[in-house]
Amino acid sequence: MARTYPLYPVIMAGGSGTRFWPLSRHLFPKQLLRIGGEHTLIQQTMRRVLGCAPAANVLISTNAAQADLIRGQLIDWKDELMDGFLLEPEGRNTAPAIALAAIEVLGRDPDGLMLVVPADHVVTGQRDFEAAVQLASQLAVERYLVTFGIKPIRPETGYGYIKPNDKMLLGKQGKLRGYRVQKFVEKPNATKAAQYLKAGQYFWNSGMFVWRAATIVEEIRRHQPAIATAMDRIRELKVTGASTQVIDDVYRAIKPVSIDSGVMEQSSKAAVVPVMFQWSDVGSWGSLDEVAEKNKAGNVVIGRVVDLESTRSIVYADRRVVATIGLHDMVVVDTPDATLVCPKARAQDVKKIVDILKQQQAPEHLEHLTVQRPWGSYTVLEEGPGFKVKRVTVNPGGRLSLQLHRQRSEHWVVIAGIARVTRGVEIFDLQVGQSAAIPMKTQHRLENPGKEIVHIIEVQNGPYLGEDDIVRFKDDYGRSVKREA
Amino acid sequence: MARTYPLYPVIMAGGSGTRFWPLSRHLFPKQLLRIGGEHTLIQQTMRRVLGCAPAANVLISTNAAQADLIRGQLIDWKDELMDGFLLEPEGRNTAPAIALAAIEVLGRDPDGLMLVVPADHVVTGQRDFEAAVQLASQLAVERYLVTFGIKPIRPETGYGYIKPNDKMLLGKQGKLRGYRVQKFVEKPNATKAAQYLKAGQYFWNSGMFVWRAATIVEEIRRHQPAIATAMDRIRELKVTGASTQVIDDVYRAIKPVSIDSGVMEQSSKAAVVPVMFQWSDVGSWGSLDEVAEKNKAGNVVIGRVVDLESTRSIVYADRRVVATIGLHDMVVVDTPDATLVCPKARAQDVKKIVDILKQQQAPEHLEHLTVQRPWGSYTVLEEGPGFKVKRVTVNPGGRLSLQLHRQRSEHWVVIAGIARVTRGVEIFDLQVGQSAAIPMKTQHRLENPGKEIVHIIEVQNGPYLGEDDIVRFKDDYGRSVKREA
Repeated sequence: MARTYPLYPVIMAGGSGTRFWPLSRHLFPKQLLRIGGEHTLIQQTMRRVLGCAPAANVLISTNAAQADLIRGQLIDWKDELMDGFLLEPEGRNTAPAIALAAIEVLGRDPDGLMLVVPADHVVTGQRDFEAAVQLASQLAVERYLVTFGIKPIRPETGYGYIKPNDKMLLGKQGKLRGYRVQKFVEKPNATKAAQYLKAGQYFWNSGMFVWRAATIVEEIRRHQPAIATAMDRIRELKVTGASTQVIDDVYRAIKPVSIDSGVMEQSSKAAVVPVMFQWSDVGSWGSLDEVAEKNKAGNVVIGRVVDLESTRSIVYADRRVVATIGLHDMVVVDTPDATLVCPKARAQDVKKIVDILKQQQAPEHLEHLTVQRPWGSYTVLEEGPGFKVKRVTVNPGGRLSLQLHRQRSEHWVVIAGIARVTRGVEIFDLQVGQSAAIPMKTQHRLENPGKEIVHIIEVQNGPYLGEDDIVRFKDDYGRSVKREA
Repeated sequence: MARTYPLYPVIMAGGSGTRFWPLSRHLFPKQLLRIGGEHTLIQQTMRRVLGCAPAANVLISTNAAQADLIRGQLIDWKDELMDGFLLEPEGRNTAPAIALAAIEVLGRDPDGLMLVVPADHVVTGQRDFEAAVQLASQLAVERYLVTFGIKPIRPETGYGYIKPNDKMLLGKQGKLRGYRVQKFVEKPNATKAAQYLKAGQYFWNSGMFVWRAATIVEEIRRHQPAIATAMDRIRELKVTGASTQVIDDVYRAIKPVSIDSGVMEQSSKAAVVPVMFQWSDVGSWGSLDEVAEKNKAGNVVIGRVVDLESTRSIVYADRRVVATIGLHDMVVVDTPDATLVCPKARAQDVKKIVDILKQQQAPEHLEHLTVQRPWGSYTVLEEGPGFKVKRVTVNPGGRLSLQLHRQRSEHWVVIAGIARVTRGVEIFDLQVGQSAAIPMKTQHRLENPGKEIVHIIEVQNGPYLGEDDIVRFKDDYGRSVKREA
């Protein structure tokens, strides 16, 4: 019987959320946006890899801060993904994250193949994608590190390029060919990029890979021994039952390095499959053009927009009306707490705006006014001296921790669903239009025993209204609780 | 003893609020904006005319929809302005409104002079303004219709021009001169405007006038007999104690005509005083440049703006952060429910946006999310199916009508001040952090017995949440109430 090489898709989902600000945030990265389809990018990615492997094989490489959000996104595969989350304590670029995933795959099957894909790219052409994965898998079995090469459609200076070695054909399937890599080229200047586009022998490095877990571990050991050593140490610590904190500290001590520069460009085993599918990393607002639907004037228009005579612009409206007149090649993005206006050509500089907001410790770089929680979400409607108003949603079956606040009282008015309230020793249900007052320092809990999402309006009063004024006594989601006497 | 000619300033305050959308609205016109100073334009105008006449002489020509707002603006002169409001039932351009004011002045003093000024212009140079009024008053006593001419600073095609007759000097004072008008020129094309600027003998028609009330009434009778007839009829009706509705119908039947084209351009008595003060009608976002403070890059920046390398642009942020990159000669205006982005050169077309919103019956053309009321204000924080959340403020001593709603219940949570609540037969006070539930169909009233503004959060629940679901039983502000059995 022939050996089988099962495929484990690894979705790289640890994005920083700066390029699509203000729609993306540090805690709400690009993969959570609906771009080029009805599903979010990470949902699209999940659906894409399911053409190649069962959901139980999928691994999600992310971090603790984003894990809850991503679980929410992939709720349809909740059971299959139970053990599929690999959490980095802190981002260390792609090489360490991939090493961690490779070890997980080896643990499941020493012959396992990995299909590494970023969570936030757009791919059009599912069949072509699957065909490319199939050919790449054949090469991967032969211990190649396979990357997918994208045919350039513009002289892009933001990507690395790959030149295949035409004389070293490694395999083929239909029209697809796999070659050894002749060379990797770092992001070129404009002149070089134009040459590459014209030459037709260079491909964009898409950041997607297929390889055997065993091969990438070997190659990491060869070219990034420090990472390999750290991984060995982490494995030992796990066996001896060390605390998460100790293990995380080892990971944190790794020097960040990308799989491209750290391994692929060093390795003699690099291969490339020039692919047929269409691809975009939607790396900035300017690149939305490649994947979003445009009107006759070439505008991408989303939401309540009133426009006069604009062309080739991107206008995104959330809840407000956005009026635009005579814009050309511009980006306008309007969200509940932040608005961006810039020429498309300057869209890369959005990162600088995010950096400034971060320096200012402005909340707008970090998260949206609507914040996702394991039990639902909350949206700050207004805040001012001594008060804060929120709309809180609780998912069916969800409940907040049993908690109290030392410095604020709260009023809850139900506007949808039936809310179950614990207040001190009482437990009671509130219908739409009913309310409850929760005095300061009183234990309380909000839960949704029904099948419809509960919405309440919460009015907080008190001298201090920070999220950290909370003492938790019980929690369904593993968040730290105060030990009761 | 010499006759005295007391001066009656007439502030024309009936603006339509389209040019500064989204900061101005149909029910929140430009005169309510703080432009070029710490006070609103109408407050600036009031202060300006008080250099020429006592507050008790000031007349405010406006309409019923805006009167409450303007009273609020001019609250410092509440007692003096008691009888100063002249309400048009509907706008009929300037000639009928001025005729109405002239009749009021004649009633107070047959020798009265009028100083007619728009409520929403910016004037810099109070002394020069007062000097111009003084010289103009001397000419007005001699039965001239005096207009103020502004020295052009650009080839403006949006204003009418006035050419003085240099050979007909009517009076002087210091460096100021008053002349007969040689000719009025309608808005010129760009070539003509450039010629006028170069010639130096043409002045912008500022829309400010000084004349005897008796003179303008005579001239209206001569050149606009239909208006004079309507005014005669209105006076008769007032004497016989006719209903407001009957009187208003006579006014509504007048054909709209401006004082410029309808009287000034026809009259042989027109005079002009070229003035020394700086003036701007701030007719659009583009003209804000003339009156607002600019930073080194030539940007007018208001609010929380994060900018990279923009020049000569206007960026207005309200509560949200607005990020701009590389904008040149652009206008960005961000308000709680509407955002505008356009090149300065297209700022005049904002009117077209407002027209579109009006056709769509979109609330954003009409008023802000914060709506002024005689007792305070309310702001819609969020609304959705079956619920609406408002922040309501009640001024010291203010109280809402005694009312009930047929289709909604309400919850009030006090977040500032002490609120007195009437609910059915109960009357009780709520402190900060306390709340009250108002069931559907229950008579209720909210008032502020204290000296601090009361703020409450109101959560409405019900199948219909329109402002018109209200039955009023008692009201302090003369709004219609249901006769109690």
